[in-house]
Amino acid sequence: MTNTQLTLVQIDNYGPWTVTPEPRREMDLQTLQSRLFADLAQFVGSRDGYVFFTRFDNMVAVTNGLGRDDHELLQESIANRYPVTLSLGIGVDRNPAVALERATDVVQRAGSAQDHERREVLSGETLPMEDRADSDVQIAHFDVNDATGKYTDRLNEFDTFIQIEQGYASLMRHLREEHGALSFFVGGDNIISVTPDLTASQYRAAIDHVEGEAGVELKVGVGTASNAHEAGFAAKHALEDCRHRGTIVEFADAPLAADD
Amino acid sequence: MTNTQLTLVQIDNYGPWTVTPEPRREMDLQTLQSRLFADLAQFVGSRDGYVFFTRFDNMVAVTNGLGRDDHELLQESIANRYPVTLSLGIGVDRNPAVALERATDVVQRAGSAQDHERREVLSGETLPMEDRADSDVQIAHFDVNDATGKYTDRLNEFDTFIQIEQGYASLMRHLREEHGALSFFVGGDNIISVTPDLTASQYRAAIDHVEGEAGVELKVGVGTASNAHEAGFAAKHALEDCRHRGTIVEFADAPLAADD
Amino acid sequence: MTNTQLTLVQIDNYGPWTVTPEPRREMDLQTLQSRLFADLAQFVGSRDGYVFFTRFDNMVAVTNGLGRDDHELLQESIANRYPVTLSLGIGVDRNPAVALERATDVVQRAGSAQDHERREVLSGETLPMEDRADSDVQIAHFDVNDATGKYTDRLNEFDTFIQIEQGYASLMRHLREEHGALSFFVGGDNIISVTPDLTASQYRAAIDHVEGEAGVELKVGVGTASNAHEAGFAAKHALEDCRHRGTIVEFADAPLAADD
Amino acid sequence: MTNTQLTLVQIDNYGPWTVTPEPRREMDLQTLQSRLFADLAQFVGSRDGYVFFTRFDNMVAVTNGLGRDDHELLQESIANRYPVTLSLGIGVDRNPAVALERATDVVQRAGSAQDHERREVLSGETLPMEDRADSDVQIAHFDVNDATGKYTDRLNEFDTFIQIEQGYASLMRHLREEHGALSFFVGGDNIISVTPDLTASQYRAAIDHVEGEAGVELKVGVGTASNAHEAGFAAKHALEDCRHRGTIVEFADAPLAADD
Repeated sequence: MTNTQLTLVQIDNYGPWTVTPEPRREMDLQTLQSRLFADLAQFVGSRDGYVFFTRFDNMVAVTNGLGRDDHELLQESIANRYPVTLSLGIGVDRNPAVALERATDVVQRAGSAQDHERREVLSGETLPMEDRADSDVQIAHFDVNDATGKYTDRLNEFDTFIQIEQGYASLMRHLREEHGALSFFVGGDNIISVTPDLTASQYRAAIDHVEGEAGVELKVGVGTASNAHEAGFAAKHALEDCRHRGTIVEFADAPLAADD
Repeated sequence: MTNTQLTLVQIDNYGPWTVTPEPRREMDLQTLQSRLFADLAQFVGSRDGYVFFTRFDNMVAVTNGLGRDDHELLQESIANRYPVTLSLGIGVDRNPAVALERATDVVQRAGSAQDHERREVLSGETLPMEDRADSDVQIAHFDVNDATGKYTDRLNEFDTFIQIEQGYASLMRHLREEHGALSFFVGGDNIISVTPDLTASQYRAAIDHVEGEAGVELKVGVGTASNAHEAGFAAKHALEDCRHRGTIVEFADAPLAADD
Repeated sequence: MTNTQLTLVQIDNYGPWTVTPEPRREMDLQTLQSRLFADLAQFVGSRDGYVFFTRFDNMVAVTNGLGRDDHELLQESIANRYPVTLSLGIGVDRNPAVALERATDVVQRAGSAQDHERREVLSGETLPMEDRADSDVQIAHFDVNDATGKYTDRLNEFDTFIQIEQGYASLMRHLREEHGALSFFVGGDNIISVTPDLTASQYRAAIDHVEGEAGVELKVGVGTASNAHEAGFAAKHALEDCRHRGTIVEFADAPLAADD
Repeated sequence: MTNTQLTLVQIDNYGPWTVTPEPRREMDLQTLQSRLFADLAQFVGSRDGYVFFTRFDNMVAVTNGLGRDDHELLQESIANRYPVTLSLGIGVDRNPAVALERATDVVQRAGSAQDHERREVLSGETLPMEDRADSDVQIAHFDVNDATGKYTDRLNEFDTFIQIEQGYASLMRHLREEHGALSFFVGGDNIISVTPDLTASQYRAAIDHVEGEAGVELKVGVGTASNAHEAGFAAKHALEDCRHRGTIVEFADAPLAADD
């Protein structure tokens, strides 16, 4: 059974900071947001977690394997190198949406995102070492069938983009409402979802729903492990199996070998 | 009248590269994508253009003010510092969607995004210096009314995110279909659109449409200038006017002073 | 007694790469070198090690606390994100110079730095967990007395720089020849040395030597711990003690508290 | 005749910032310093200038081609994205050391580097467009003969490093005292000097001096142009000529073609 540890990463007082004393150059804000996300991706990723850019001022991370000390260090390092600081809320639950509920809640109770006095909250429960298991994290990696042939090489880029967005919007809502799974667009034609234990037929139903609602055809590889990196890596390999076998849902066969 | 110069930025052969010889760690791909975008934001932004991350392997830039030499230098600099290369297609038209059509077309005609032999296309027309005017670029900067109070401080982050996404998906489709305007989510609760000449009532209609279709309330500041930075900066100031006056559509009053 | 684990980080085939097929823009090489170093500083630093930029194509890291798996992950992550790859040689010895000898040797035996076939060597012994002790790493943090008053606010920047360089060149040679200690300029007027167990009078002798040979007055804070971060942090605090007490050699009093 | 425009880049109040309220993690400071330098290298480099990391809190840039507006934009962009700000002093003179004297002087007169009230000085004269000429900037690019064979593949890295440093220290002092030329180690076994008009025999004398004083054998390629990038690029090509012809001093033959 899944047991997802999620961390909400929220930049403190960001809205006001971006316009005080005057609005800042937009491309500088884009640069700061992207590089902050990249640093989180490296810190969390090298500890076998995943981070999703989400809204950039609010980001969601799968942090099974990161303890409170890791979160403290991350907060300290960002404060040393950026003109902004981060609040971190951590939550654990068998269902990802509930875990995020908890993570968001501990930050909200400490104060508003725009409370200029609320800085560097670090709160919530991590999953204890002894309670961890190989079934804790399920990751589903979706991509669009033949996106390059159908869209990228044929439509102008914005119309391709609209298609991908419609597919994403449909999948994100369906998986959230039906299962409490959280889905994130990660570039290209790829969407990664953090799910509870879902079956092949539940994935097929999600794919059918998206095709019906948005006209976009997806396929998916699914992996499970004690952390996001290993689960996601298994999911990527399973997605390659879809490509080679011409199938639309594949589960990784075996746990990853030690060096994956 | 607007006269938009858009550049399509496409990473060459990216899909195959990410899985050859084996799939790569997802957080390393996220880091590479974000830092590449950040570098583009700095290069284009310091020349008064805008870049939008879009799908990360395909990005859209408003490049009024950047000539062919600038595009060549950007391509060379990225090739010197990254394990991937870029193809750049440039297009100009009074309507942004048509400009992007042209930009995409010159890249597509050179070869598929996954043609492993197609590398570093640089093609298309730039807007000549002598044809530039203060009315060339119209930028509309939307944000969600009281996003912090209604969503960020109340819902869990994913449900806030779903709301923002639904609002974005609705706005992007409406503005594209009605006007050929291109809209991009840029973080937080902000959406920036590159538009043809639109009127206050056309913006009000777009805002009404989004409220009706997605239940999300937007407001917008609009600016016009010879380049994206100045138009966008004026739009940001106009958005501050919305905040102070309690209005939902504001146009920047005067051209920016020389030091903005 | 100190027991230093050092890693030599060497970019594979870099000299030829920088001029093939043609020389590359110098500022792009500077950017790549600096950002690669910064990524190493984050990866190693967040695991409580230190990295010194040294010659940028060859860098020296104090890696007590990093195992072989950490080194593999670092190599993989850099290969995923940069147009170059790294070879890593690890060595352990009670004397830093000997440890670096070992680290360099395992890389040299695998092939020349400009052997275009030699890629991603990963070789050498790490210090086993069970053999680690709080006395393993001694760090000495030197700075120039009143650099701002004597130099920065009075001379032109290059003449200030020449003074700092002469002081550095003198200290690096003295500590290496006398003790096998390795010294690195880290910016401003700061030099950090990785030393074997040295006494206060040995540090005073080094400071006298540099004053006599180069006319530059140094002071030093010294710390010892099981890893470079904690030893170096204690050394920084000891240096603050020098500032407050007007002394020129201070040792950190006690082991760091858990939250340093 | 050369006419060098140099900019001194100084981080405001950096010493105090690094220890307030407490000393900061050294690897975070190294990361911030390196990434700040990398951003300057991109901004200045894409405008055909050069930046040298020098002491990281004080950096020297060759800015022929950058006007006051460019300097203002650089300052603004850094202030938007970093937790520190920059003061910039600009100086022009036929002799580089004098130009740097002027650049440093205008910053010093505004206040101490550690005056916590002095922020974002922007002062000094730029070289007017109409006064620019192809002879304005002379760049000499030195490297060590067969560094890989003599040092990198044979000695431990620190002893190789000591050799390179001794060679650098000797060259920097000789060229500064004899000619007012400013020399900067740029990684590997490379040193770049910004010089007044020097002749082949003056370069041979410098090379002889370094061999005599430090036992390190250098060779050099020299280029001249209206800006640092073109001069330096020509110097790199001239250095390749040294390699192919077995000579130790080469001047670039002709001005660079437009697409260099």
